[in-house]
Amino acid sequence: MENGSSQSWRFRGNEELNTASGITIRGVLTSLMQSLNQSDPRPTIPLGHGDPSVFPCFRTTPIAEDAIADSVRSAKFNCYSPTVGILPARRAIAEYLSRDLPYQLSPDDVYLTLGCTQAIEVILTVLARPGANILLPTPGFPYYEARAAFSHIEARHFDLLPEKDWEVDLNSVEALADENTVAMVIVNPGNPCGNVFTYQHLKKVAETARKLGILVIADEVYDHLAFGSNPFVPMGVFGSIVPVITLGSISKRWIVPGWRLGWLVTSDPNGILRKSGIVDCIMGFLNISSDPATFIQGAVPQILAKTNEEFFSRIISVLRQASDICYDRVKEVSCITCPHKPEGSMFVMVKLNVSLLEDISDDMDFCLKLAIEENVIVLPGVTVGLKNWLRITFAVEPSYLEDGFARIKAFCQRHAKKQ
Amino acid sequence: MENGSSQSWRFRGNEELNTASGITIRGVLTSLMQSLNQSDPRPTIPLGHGDPSVFPCFRTTPIAEDAIADSVRSAKFNCYSPTVGILPARRAIAEYLSRDLPYQLSPDDVYLTLGCTQAIEVILTVLARPGANILLPTPGFPYYEARAAFSHIEARHFDLLPEKDWEVDLNSVEALADENTVAMVIVNPGNPCGNVFTYQHLKKVAETARKLGILVIADEVYDHLAFGSNPFVPMGVFGSIVPVITLGSISKRWIVPGWRLGWLVTSDPNGILRKSGIVDCIMGFLNISSDPATFIQGAVPQILAKTNEEFFSRIISVLRQASDICYDRVKEVSCITCPHKPEGSMFVMVKLNVSLLEDISDDMDFCLKLAIEENVIVLPGVTVGLKNWLRITFAVEPSYLEDGFARIKAFCQRHAKKQ
Ligand SMILES: Cc1ncc(COP(=O)(O)O)c(C=O)c1O
Ligand SMILES: Cc1ncc(COP(=O)(O)O)c(C=O)c1O
Repeated sequence: MENGSSQSWRFRGNEELNTASGITIRGVLTSLMQSLNQSDPRPTIPLGHGDPSVFPCFRTTPIAEDAIADSVRSAKFNCYSPTVGILPARRAIAEYLSRDLPYQLSPDDVYLTLGCTQAIEVILTVLARPGANILLPTPGFPYYEARAAFSHIEARHFDLLPEKDWEVDLNSVEALADENTVAMVIVNPGNPCGNVFTYQHLKKVAETARKLGILVIADEVYDHLAFGSNPFVPMGVFGSIVPVITLGSISKRWIVPGWRLGWLVTSDPNGILRKSGIVDCIMGFLNISSDPATFIQGAVPQILAKTNEEFFSRIISVLRQASDICYDRVKEVSCITCPHKPEGSMFVMVKLNVSLLEDISDDMDFCLKLAIEENVIVLPGVTVGLKNWLRITFAVEPSYLEDGFARIKAFCQRHAKKQ
Repeated sequence: MENGSSQSWRFRGNEELNTASGITIRGVLTSLMQSLNQSDPRPTIPLGHGDPSVFPCFRTTPIAEDAIADSVRSAKFNCYSPTVGILPARRAIAEYLSRDLPYQLSPDDVYLTLGCTQAIEVILTVLARPGANILLPTPGFPYYEARAAFSHIEARHFDLLPEKDWEVDLNSVEALADENTVAMVIVNPGNPCGNVFTYQHLKKVAETARKLGILVIADEVYDHLAFGSNPFVPMGVFGSIVPVITLGSISKRWIVPGWRLGWLVTSDPNGILRKSGIVDCIMGFLNISSDPATFIQGAVPQILAKTNEEFFSRIISVLRQASDICYDRVKEVSCITCPHKPEGSMFVMVKLNVSLLEDISDDMDFCLKLAIEENVIVLPGVTVGLKNWLRITFAVEPSYLEDGFARIKAFCQRHAKKQ
């Protein structure tokens, strides 16, 4: 039987989804990739993503790979997982994170998620209610905007200040908040800025949030990836000032973003989140959500216990070297400037001076033409909330970085205004 | 600093989540498990779940375990996945499913999901719009109700008819549908009924849906687990009569529900789903959703290509043997009757005659007392929409099944009304 043209169908797609998903980094990078010049024989230099796992110098430790293979071969973890995650994994994560805290997390504070991505989904779903708003950083990680839109939470934006090492503009936080504000988000170490907040600054963030009566959501997916002068301090250190929801994963520190293992942690020694019903709602939502593969959960205790310092410090030193190259090379390109040397995560924000360029209208145009002419991918700042900035990933093989910057330099010279 | 009692907080949990998640099988089973008598020295007999992976006779094939270990050790799949899944896995699934169809699926018809669970989430999110309703079977799989509630889609229920081998009551489908009906759901092979629809019946389902202008969502998570006289026929066979969204996973056929690898497939040779915007919305929602672990995706081609018939037929014969034991033992217990011998999936529905029992008020009471007195877990029918029925899982080690039924028999005799 053929589908006659007279047939009419009652279903159609929910248009809201296109709005919510229209602003992801994945989407912008995909369209830049599609603009690459296929006939250019040079390799593509990917300085746009946050996933260095394909580069040999960023290969994860065999200890983690063995832990997965052992776990799946044990046949103990073929079963469904409890909605909150299996206890040995929750316990291992509680212990791992407690090392850096002035109090001890319990396994019950830890909820296993599909990477930090699902942890964001969970908390933004749990906080949704009619009229609620949330304070997000600019520049920021656009998945928060997408999920807030999907949950009908209004997003309000405070600034990170480039002249102050990308610290939070706490005055603007206070000015934005009202009685419908439920939380503020910080990302530390920073994506997209590559900054690492000081202990003192984080304490001020906690005090501001307490004053406003709002929750702090601390996205620490880049935890421990700090290679400058500020050490990484988890926001949970200030959990007795203000309740903190800490989001993290093994994606970045172990360079295994495809493994989809993360956590949402209530860093809340006073139990405020339990009393306010947030904890029940987290469990309620996890009840109707998907879980990380059970055998990956089963590998977590071994991964956390056995990965040696050598692996971590090798990764840190590769990142430090790469960030140094990046910072130095930016200085050699006249139309971009870097306000703050990166000291954490995998990114740096640089300011684009379009007035020095002849036929480039803005950051998006810059990135598009750079992709077409030089096979180099860089993320336009507008994607993370700052027009006429660029986010550059330095977490690539160092030779790629040199090659990429040589091409960026040539591109800028070719497009420079003739005086 | 201590949290002073004068401090007030502006955040609270989204109460809707408790409603949406209040009706899951996991929740009911967890509370039954908590009622078990800890001092009973006998092993617990779990006849409530849908996860036989812990039993030695249901261990998955080493071919699948090896595929995972190889994939993770290759270090090719540590990276993020595209939102729709990696191409080799999509292609392998398209080929695997096309073997049973009169047309060829393209890899573009296949979206990888976190088990069939996330596939249900995706389609119920995509179909949401103000006022929409969906037709669900009674008895059914309550995750559909939970996700419909979360998406604000009204659930309307049609009956499966025990006296007609649990076929769909197509008259009630027609009576329920109106201009806001977007889809109907069938589960085949059936959970909770253990039935397998005939080719003729599925064709009638397709024709009814076409007449109503609605989509068919075919949950085939138990695909190929058919051991009676009706062979398994995929609903996609009728994709040219009505667009079909096929949902499936490796959870059941490979007995690896913890691996979280499933699919949503557009079985729609006329491309109606593309034209109506459903396909764009699926991609839009996947853009803001979590993906299956990339290395599990990477193992899919090997799992599908290399698993031998021997493994599949061994599982089928264990299931057939177990279902026979189950059917025979039910006959020996006077207060339960089985209207239809199971011929697929892992479950059977049996009717409870409470009027024969002295101090049992309903199915929930029966299951609670059975758990307390006999350490046997059975799912109360009310959980799947049929009060005073029971859903019994026969997918357990056969010796457990014998032991479990001996205890059920003793329980019923002890509680029987004295004449
Ligand atoms: C700030 C931030 N949060 C969350 C995520 C998601 O992390 P995951 O891979 O653990 O889901 C990313 C990934 O790039 C990120 O940059
Ligand atoms: C009818 C039905 N659909 C979907 C699922 C979920 O399957 P998966 O484990 O692939 O997420 C189940 C699991 O029991 C089921 O019975």
